[in-house]
Amino acid sequence: MADVNAIAKQFVDYYYSTFAGNRPGLATLYRDSSMMTWEGQQIQGVGPIIEKLSSLPFEKVAHRVTTLDAQPSSPSQPSMIVLVTGLLIVDDSQNPLNFSQTFQLYPEAGTYFVQNDVFRLNYG
Amino acid sequence: MADVNAIAKQFVDYYYSTFAGNRPGLATLYRDSSMMTWEGQQIQGVGPIIEKLSSLPFEKVAHRVTTLDAQPSSPSQPSMIVLVTGLLIVDDSQNPLNFSQTFQLYPEAGTYFVQNDVFRLNYG
Repeated sequence: MADVNAIAKQFVDYYYSTFAGNRPGLATLYRDSSMMTWEGQQIQGVGPIIEKLSSLPFEKVAHRVTTLDAQPSSPSQPSMIVLVTGLLIVDDSQNPLNFSQTFQLYPEAGTYFVQNDVFRLNYG
Repeated sequence: MADVNAIAKQFVDYYYSTFAGNRPGLATLYRDSSMMTWEGQQIQGVGPIIEKLSSLPFEKVAHRVTTLDAQPSSPSQPSMIVLVTGLLIVDDSQNPLNFSQTFQLYPEAGTYFVQNDVFRLNYG
């Protein structure tokens, strides 16, 4: 599964750096079929997902990845499931929040897009 | 997605109660194609997965589910992705551990099996 882990790491690095620097730029990673569940709220499609992510009330945000695990998710195509756990640091807060996020990435034209995205904060 | 959430809840309740009471009984939920990543260790197939789960050094264990989110994971079949976050209580410890677990469930003959299983403890 080495290849899957390398792709997942590259994806996650790109995703969170884009999240920090240019949230609307995440639009290239979603499609109209994409589903996101953000703290229990279910959202479908690239437009509504980017609207949600862009409206989150963070001036400045960083995801610090603690663990990253990936697995192939289908026998018929090179899709993969990725589970990330880590710390969310909002507006330079001294109290980072634990988060967990699951992605399912689908292959498309030599790259990947996010078909499933489930995000949860863990209030400990 | 109401149906998906109901199936996911039923699965998770059954999974963790079986985990607590009869870990070898989880064998019915995995197949030879199933993949598990347990704290970074990659394991494939029902035999090795059950061997791993049965060998975990807990006399008594309970999973307390805090959040449970589910999404359909494929356009072509009623598979689903489930993200669980919660507390793992080992041997009546007063210090439960946060955990995150992602399942992908595949349909089969009117029921579901676990194709993907990623488990992580969050050390906070």
